[in-house]
Amino acid sequence: MNVKGFRFSAVEAAIKKPGRLDLALICSDAPAAVAAVYTTNKVKAAPVLLDMERTTSGTCRAVVVNSGNANACTGDRGMEDARETTSLVAERIGASEHEVLVCSTGVIGVPLPMERIRGGIPSLVAGLGSATLDQIAAAIMTTDTFPKLEARTGTAGGVGYTIAGIAKGAGMIMPNMATMLAFVVTDAAVDPQWLDRVFRRANDTSFNAITVDGDMSTNDTAIIMANGAAGNPVLSEGSEGAAEFAVLLEEVLLSLAKLIVKDGEGATKFVEVTVKGARSDADAKRAAMAVANSCLVKTAFFGQDANWGRIFAAVGYSGADVEPDRAELFFDDVRMVQGGVFAGGDAEARGTGVLRKKEFTVTVDLHLGDGRATVYTSDLSYDYVKINADYRT
Amino acid sequence: MNVKGFRFSAVEAAIKKPGRLDLALICSDAPAAVAAVYTTNKVKAAPVLLDMERTTSGTCRAVVVNSGNANACTGDRGMEDARETTSLVAERIGASEHEVLVCSTGVIGVPLPMERIRGGIPSLVAGLGSATLDQIAAAIMTTDTFPKLEARTGTAGGVGYTIAGIAKGAGMIMPNMATMLAFVVTDAAVDPQWLDRVFRRANDTSFNAITVDGDMSTNDTAIIMANGAAGNPVLSEGSEGAAEFAVLLEEVLLSLAKLIVKDGEGATKFVEVTVKGARSDADAKRAAMAVANSCLVKTAFFGQDANWGRIFAAVGYSGADVEPDRAELFFDDVRMVQGGVFAGGDAEARGTGVLRKKEFTVTVDLHLGDGRATVYTSDLSYDYVKINADYRT
Repeated sequence: MNVKGFRFSAVEAAIKKPGRLDLALICSDAPAAVAAVYTTNKVKAAPVLLDMERTTSGTCRAVVVNSGNANACTGDRGMEDARETTSLVAERIGASEHEVLVCSTGVIGVPLPMERIRGGIPSLVAGLGSATLDQIAAAIMTTDTFPKLEARTGTAGGVGYTIAGIAKGAGMIMPNMATMLAFVVTDAAVDPQWLDRVFRRANDTSFNAITVDGDMSTNDTAIIMANGAAGNPVLSEGSEGAAEFAVLLEEVLLSLAKLIVKDGEGATKFVEVTVKGARSDADAKRAAMAVANSCLVKTAFFGQDANWGRIFAAVGYSGADVEPDRAELFFDDVRMVQGGVFAGGDAEARGTGVLRKKEFTVTVDLHLGDGRATVYTSDLSYDYVKINADYRT
Repeated sequence: MNVKGFRFSAVEAAIKKPGRLDLALICSDAPAAVAAVYTTNKVKAAPVLLDMERTTSGTCRAVVVNSGNANACTGDRGMEDARETTSLVAERIGASEHEVLVCSTGVIGVPLPMERIRGGIPSLVAGLGSATLDQIAAAIMTTDTFPKLEARTGTAGGVGYTIAGIAKGAGMIMPNMATMLAFVVTDAAVDPQWLDRVFRRANDTSFNAITVDGDMSTNDTAIIMANGAAGNPVLSEGSEGAAEFAVLLEEVLLSLAKLIVKDGEGATKFVEVTVKGARSDADAKRAAMAVANSCLVKTAFFGQDANWGRIFAAVGYSGADVEPDRAELFFDDVRMVQGGVFAGGDAEARGTGVLRKKEFTVTVDLHLGDGRATVYTSDLSYDYVKINADYRT
């Protein structure tokens, strides 16, 4: 995996337990166009607040990431620590501190162990170029069970480029929130404003369309850097190759998002929930999210119970417009509900067969309009409760 | 428990498994003022649709309740079956069918077994007066582990009256939704319009302030009947004794609501979540409900983990206005968070001590205004997953 003009590094700074990489650096040799999407939680971690300010400039040089401590709910000291972390990196890579972003994931409410971070940064920067992106994907893991990496190559104006992304997911960040972090690097040259637009759009159908437990972290962050090292004509709205770039970017993000769900805490099922025929796309998303977040629906998935009543009821309380006697519901291609009532026949047996699979789809057709949305979720298992209840007891 | 002018009956109609009462009747000798609150789920069961129409008249004679079948997602046939059930009762008690309401709880999507209901109704009506309200509380149970009954006595214009209520709760209705049903009977004479207002208000702070898993059933219904048999001067807005009646009614409903949470599926903790200092009461309720419905928060309760970060994060994504650096958070009287950061000292040890209790409070003070709300919830345990996953597998 080579993305021109980017170098990577990861070290053990002893923020997590010994033997685990916990400080990583993604660095572009030249200033890169940057766009980012942050948690909408009103309780935002210090690094999120700092990065939100800095990414408005549209360019950056590097992102430094620590795991083991979220630097959230840490007040003024947390802001100081986040700033110092970026400043220590900036002076060593020859950048302004405003060109360096920072992300943190881990325990909430405990100050960053700055002595360890100060101690780790010199070797972190010195090691730039020694790590592959795969190794960075592993370094940002917390309780993820596998590293998540996805890449695509494309061409613009006859020039080849690469888009590569890594993510860490909904695996529990002991002892606190599950935080999602995603970093995408590309050597394509991209207009910063268009990059922002296309990155937000791709987030809507990927990272914003997955749910493991419905909770939203104080630290969720997705960042893309485009440094132009490939030398293609700058991609912008309507330019040659722009549509292809947008599709490839969405593929990278969607693939990472699905990997996060598959690695969700205690997940034994991967379920794609589509609501179509809604009055609007927003209504469809509301209904699909209500289904995907319902504890009753998700325990039924775990129990392999073709319980369409729970799904139908979740659509009903979602706030989306529903006329029950028009609705259809399918497990894969098995119609369970037609005209708002049980489809009868062998639907029960066939539907149960679908739910025994490891991956399946749930489709609700409201027959009210053209609104459509797909979200991705897992089941709710004993292990989810175990992972989330057992820490420090 | 005697409420003048009301008679009760319950029989086995073989809708549920043999040996369980599954058809109950609450009957007032004279037409009673009636008010009701129904599920806001857009997928409403047939009996809910029928009752919504009928309670607009402001009076009724009887409520017939079956458990074992929800008569939900049953289309036109479901409406016919609900109507016939009320009609069979009405002709035997000498009422118009429009004066009889029906409630159902149980499996979704399967037609009511009308032969059994037709077979059970004659002995049900013949038995009026043979059952106590306690027995009705038991007859409407599904997987509830104990019957829920609460009563208060008051006086109006020197005349004594009784308010008695029963409820069935969030215990799983196999194999489908958890349905909440509540029936309140009083021999007080009450103006129907004022009864409606005061009953809705009492519902807001009781049945609408509890959550076990955040899911809302297609059949949730709370009904109050006031038949005036006590002979008091009619209670209405501002009348003598009206304030006392409102307080007693709220006490009955709140007590029943708390019993439902305590009997929640797999519940090992009873938690009172209060958000105060919010910009508005609506904001406070939004934040408190987000905390009470968070899977991460509820598994931490189960794990007795003083994980204030998860609670703080749930408040943050609730949509309520929050300024993190003003917020305080308490477990009982132990301050865990002050000015948005961990309170330090022995808070961790003392907070963990609170969470080891079977009942405790969580209080978040946002320090932004006068908005306040309290909701009641349980933890999320292995048994919740087991109860909800294991049916028919």
